[in-house]
Amino acid sequence: MLKIGILHPGEMGISLAASALQNGHAVSWVSEGRSPATQARAIQFGLTDAQTLAQLCAQCTLILSVCPPHAAETVAREVLACGYQGLYVDANAISPQRAIQIGHLLTQAGIAFVDGGIIGGPAWEPNRTWLYLSGPQAQEVAACFANGPLMTQVLDEIPGSASALKMCYAAYTKGTTALLSAILATAESLGVRAALAQQWDREGNDFTAQTTQRLRRVTAKAWRFVGEMEEIAATFQAAGMPGAFHEGAADIYRRLAPFKDASATPSLEEVLIALLNPSAERQNDG
Amino acid sequence: MLKIGILHPGEMGISLAASALQNGHAVSWVSEGRSPATQARAIQFGLTDAQTLAQLCAQCTLILSVCPPHAAETVAREVLACGYQGLYVDANAISPQRAIQIGHLLTQAGIAFVDGGIIGGPAWEPNRTWLYLSGPQAQEVAACFANGPLMTQVLDEIPGSASALKMCYAAYTKGTTALLSAILATAESLGVRAALAQQWDREGNDFTAQTTQRLRRVTAKAWRFVGEMEEIAATFQAAGMPGAFHEGAADIYRRLAPFKDASATPSLEEVLIALLNPSAERQNDG
Repeated sequence: MLKIGILHPGEMGISLAASALQNGHAVSWVSEGRSPATQARAIQFGLTDAQTLAQLCAQCTLILSVCPPHAAETVAREVLACGYQGLYVDANAISPQRAIQIGHLLTQAGIAFVDGGIIGGPAWEPNRTWLYLSGPQAQEVAACFANGPLMTQVLDEIPGSASALKMCYAAYTKGTTALLSAILATAESLGVRAALAQQWDREGNDFTAQTTQRLRRVTAKAWRFVGEMEEIAATFQAAGMPGAFHEGAADIYRRLAPFKDASATPSLEEVLIALLNPSAERQNDG
Repeated sequence: MLKIGILHPGEMGISLAASALQNGHAVSWVSEGRSPATQARAIQFGLTDAQTLAQLCAQCTLILSVCPPHAAETVAREVLACGYQGLYVDANAISPQRAIQIGHLLTQAGIAFVDGGIIGGPAWEPNRTWLYLSGPQAQEVAACFANGPLMTQVLDEIPGSASALKMCYAAYTKGTTALLSAILATAESLGVRAALAQQWDREGNDFTAQTTQRLRRVTAKAWRFVGEMEEIAATFQAAGMPGAFHEGAADIYRRLAPFKDASATPSLEEVLIALLNPSAERQNDG
């Protein structure tokens, strides 16, 4: 039985914590500075409140970082500053270069590092969510989730591989949702949105309806996809491919970021207004 | 019965010419400067050789421009220079702004203009290929294809609408093929291509196999998609959306352009080599 720390139990993180609990491990979290929603999740699943990061670092031998991409490096540096000496898993949607950089930082200070990448939504059902792992101690991390709905796969011993896979996978799913957002907004602006929907419908599937749902539903998560798209753009560029696709996608998600914490899923028309009038939306948000 | 001129009877153009012939119209082409493949197509379908553009312009009352996007404006200017006085249809994959600009140029000289956009491959089967039309005389053009496999739809009386629809439609189909090319090349470069294929295969469809085929097959057409992606980028930007997605796509198709006139469809590995070593490929081509 390991003492595992989770930073932080958001919607994804809590599902990983639940899988670890199911495997007989103890899971701690840090209440300091977290939202009431996170607090509620941690209490619901019986996580132990370490209260401060320093106490979590002192108590745990494995720390799992599951946070928005733009916060990944900060979280790692904070753990480092606490003098942590266990195993650290970064499971965030960051470029392999950034994962390697975080790994260097930590291993230089005697912290063991495993790179992770999560594909799929929160892990409540088997065969839906995969935690990919790479690094010398990847197998040790995978063993923590041997039973339960979260699937794991060790790629190799090289930190960066798990992040690379996550970047390539998300490049399509989140990249195309952003692209479709830009297409529908362009079609709306040029007065051909109905004709485009009709052409799509001619192809005999429900592409128009699916696209409408994708645009409406992505709005709640768009704020944290901005950083992920920037990480993918950096990944592509480092591989000699154009970063432009995901720079465009980051631009789109930035326009949709004001929907964070919206009380209801917006209509397609509201999504298009936000895309076509980004400055007005930002003012509303400010 | 109308005398229709087609510029030029490429793979798409010849199918439109065939549909017009099927409707009882006479169709002329210009042999001067065309390839043996185009010549063979024109002879096979019984098109009348006007030999020079000047003679085609003197003989025809309707000219249909079906050419690569980067050539659309040049073709229009050449027709203008011949003193043509009939109806001109630009059916090319160009931005609505460029279509409007070509329209202005021609109508100022007394040439009637209809904007067109073709969605689908060469029109040999019904309900597969749509010629969208916009402009005051759009109905007149549609009537030329009333019978036969080519479907037509008049959008409105405003030149630019048909091009706008074409741009928005192709933004997804050709945009995602380019995106998938960049993704597979990045995955290859980072050593996670097999893992990505495995993850795609887990989702229980043939996405990996389909993607491989899309990449291999697009190589023959990539040279003319460069201009189309640039037109889409311009369309998006004019609508206030990011042009970056299709600037990235243009970059990808530029790397694949050397496969023009390749004797065989390349393997996926050959496609990835061209994507990851664009300068080497360009040298081979030069």
